[in-house]
Amino acid sequence: MNDPRVAELLEFVRIPSVSAQSVHAADMERCADWLVAKLCQIGLEAGKEPTPGNPIVLGKTPRDPSKKTVLIYGHYDVQPPEPLELWTSPPFDPEIRDGKIYGRGASDNKGQILAHILGVGEALAEGPLPVNVIFLIEGEEEVGSGHLADFLEKHRAELACDAIAISDTGMAADGYPTLSYALRGIAAMEVRVFGPSHDLHSGIYGGAVANPATAAARLIASLHDSQGRVAIEGFYDDVQPMQPWERKAAAESPVSDQAIAEQAGVSELWGEAGYSSVERIGARPTAEINGIGSGYQGEGSKTVLPAEAFFKVTFRLVANQTPETVLEQARCYFEKHKPPGVRLEIIDGHGGEPFFLNPKGAQGVAACRALEAVFGKKPALTREGGSIPILADFQKILGHPALLLALASPDCRAHSPNENFPVENFFTGIRLNKALLQELAL
Amino acid sequence: MNDPRVAELLEFVRIPSVSAQSVHAADMERCADWLVAKLCQIGLEAGKEPTPGNPIVLGKTPRDPSKKTVLIYGHYDVQPPEPLELWTSPPFDPEIRDGKIYGRGASDNKGQILAHILGVGEALAEGPLPVNVIFLIEGEEEVGSGHLADFLEKHRAELACDAIAISDTGMAADGYPTLSYALRGIAAMEVRVFGPSHDLHSGIYGGAVANPATAAARLIASLHDSQGRVAIEGFYDDVQPMQPWERKAAAESPVSDQAIAEQAGVSELWGEAGYSSVERIGARPTAEINGIGSGYQGEGSKTVLPAEAFFKVTFRLVANQTPETVLEQARCYFEKHKPPGVRLEIIDGHGGEPFFLNPKGAQGVAACRALEAVFGKKPALTREGGSIPILADFQKILGHPALLLALASPDCRAHSPNENFPVENFFTGIRLNKALLQELAL
Repeated sequence: MNDPRVAELLEFVRIPSVSAQSVHAADMERCADWLVAKLCQIGLEAGKEPTPGNPIVLGKTPRDPSKKTVLIYGHYDVQPPEPLELWTSPPFDPEIRDGKIYGRGASDNKGQILAHILGVGEALAEGPLPVNVIFLIEGEEEVGSGHLADFLEKHRAELACDAIAISDTGMAADGYPTLSYALRGIAAMEVRVFGPSHDLHSGIYGGAVANPATAAARLIASLHDSQGRVAIEGFYDDVQPMQPWERKAAAESPVSDQAIAEQAGVSELWGEAGYSSVERIGARPTAEINGIGSGYQGEGSKTVLPAEAFFKVTFRLVANQTPETVLEQARCYFEKHKPPGVRLEIIDGHGGEPFFLNPKGAQGVAACRALEAVFGKKPALTREGGSIPILADFQKILGHPALLLALASPDCRAHSPNENFPVENFFTGIRLNKALLQELAL
Repeated sequence: MNDPRVAELLEFVRIPSVSAQSVHAADMERCADWLVAKLCQIGLEAGKEPTPGNPIVLGKTPRDPSKKTVLIYGHYDVQPPEPLELWTSPPFDPEIRDGKIYGRGASDNKGQILAHILGVGEALAEGPLPVNVIFLIEGEEEVGSGHLADFLEKHRAELACDAIAISDTGMAADGYPTLSYALRGIAAMEVRVFGPSHDLHSGIYGGAVANPATAAARLIASLHDSQGRVAIEGFYDDVQPMQPWERKAAAESPVSDQAIAEQAGVSELWGEAGYSSVERIGARPTAEINGIGSGYQGEGSKTVLPAEAFFKVTFRLVANQTPETVLEQARCYFEKHKPPGVRLEIIDGHGGEPFFLNPKGAQGVAACRALEAVFGKKPALTREGGSIPILADFQKILGHPALLLALASPDCRAHSPNENFPVENFFTGIRLNKALLQELAL
């Protein structure tokens, strides 16, 4: 693989820019410097912008007021590489095997953001760009993007744009063009159930004192009805129903039930009646128990009636639910359905808004045209089950929902050992960038 | 307190016969030797009988075939004294304060068994006993009586008797004569619920894969109906209903709901509809969750859909339920009500039969006469919520249900710091033994 563009990506991956590990502080600066140099090299005006954490790299074409402006977001920090022993080749000494580049950050996000940079570089080499371009590449995505929203606020004018493009999601299937037009939001809550003042002897008191473990279980069990729907009053009130075209897109998804079951390691899938698995994950809100604890958890048995129990629940939200409303509805529900003899303490956790970009709108249509032109087939329109909280920041502060154009393959192993990025996806990404800028100019 | 009988009890309590702690191995032997000497001193033939654990002390009057034989059971081992800093006076340097002897084992069981020994001694000093007496005093009660059943089997002929008396329970209220005529049995079970092969991202899979924590909660919630009754099919089939005299005895119990609530540290009691708290604890079977665990239990939140969950449940049984039947019923119930998408693994734990002695039978009536004669008031007939597994061994091997004659006060703090035994109860116990042997001779 003698292509100089691949050599550039290998060089980028070799910098161990692990934001979670302070031992790599100097590597973060080095990586940001490398990016600044790269952006300057292709003809942009670029620099490192300080934050209280790792610097943000900005690269810009001169702003021509007669053209639209596209902001392209990415991140240069990577996940920790551990456990090292599970890597076939060293995480920061990337290797190409079977057409894939193996290394930490190859997919997430170095390969994807470099494809956009090189795409802009190639376009610039051919002549003036059809749009103004701003690259915003942060160094804290893997540790929560703690300084991004502040930065967006402070540079709101400088970052003013007409569209936002991000390649940090996964394709629906290998080589399958994908526009992720919705992601779920999240609302977290912990419920603590208190009974007796201390663990009681289950023989001496059992039968006459309410058991907090049983009470917690009854609350959890009451969360869903027999159809798998969340039973909280009003929970679905703000849910934007799936449109006929959405159900059609979900039905055409290349993601099979069998593939989901295999990845999850289950013999059967299960969920809300009336929806397919792809719909249940992407387009329907959930109430998922993340943890429960009460009483004795060691080996064998201990005959206690526990003093307390807790459970942690996260709600995944879809447009147009809000974390605030759902947490309030859940609090009312738990208080109303509290079994007798126990007391509740309810603690709200973090929240994040759901994301929705109408792919039938002008930008969505432009992005789909670019995807189809480059991949030669109609893109999959997908809704993702996970949450990317910064999307809400972009939308609120810069005023646009982002275009999520997937370049990572389904088995890219982001965050895991043997992370990889197909060389083909890298080249496709370069072409996609050029097509996208053309389409968004219209 | 110059009474030499009290001095004897203080001497007994000073021996730190903690069966759970191997550092006290020599103290166990010393304590058994002390008992053998005491039994010989009052005129019995006595000795230490070896077991694979601590020796059992036997003391006997010569067997006169024209008389009935009464076996009196007790134990010379005690609970560990820790936490030491919570004792007002040292656990093995007993002290008398406000008419109570404070020390580890003062109530459980040294004070109570010594009262029986001294009662027999005083009676023997006055003339021949009305019955043959066998003392069986073991040294492993606090660690599960692991060698007692075997010993009973091997010495079945030597231990043949007409009645069994035990003072190792608590009075219903201070100074209130009490015959505990029933104890609950127990059946323990652990249910493990398995879902995906590994913890899943609750965003990427949540909604399409059954959650084992939720499934476990649904199983637990289904265990009771809205009336607080156990919902397992057939669970109540073998339950011997309370007789009218039992409900009357329960209604007359000196144990108030307020006292139970205060001890448990709850503001309200709760349980099966149609029964009082005393009845719920003593006469009704239960399904009590002792522990639950699943997923993330640390601080804050972790957005996982857990791979598995477990819960531990113990059923308290009443006559004539058996652990085997209840465990089988529960297994069928859980398998039948298993929510979709998960797999169960059910592990049976230990079991113990419920105990029931009809207090309207000849021995029960004799015991009540003795209690009334000594205390000057009609005894409380109580059913206890806890379990004493050896009672089933006595009944099966020696053929008699035991007479449980409480001498410990409700606030004796057995197993806790500041264990105590009122001197008055000690003297009453001595008189009770003499009255009991007279009554049982008839």
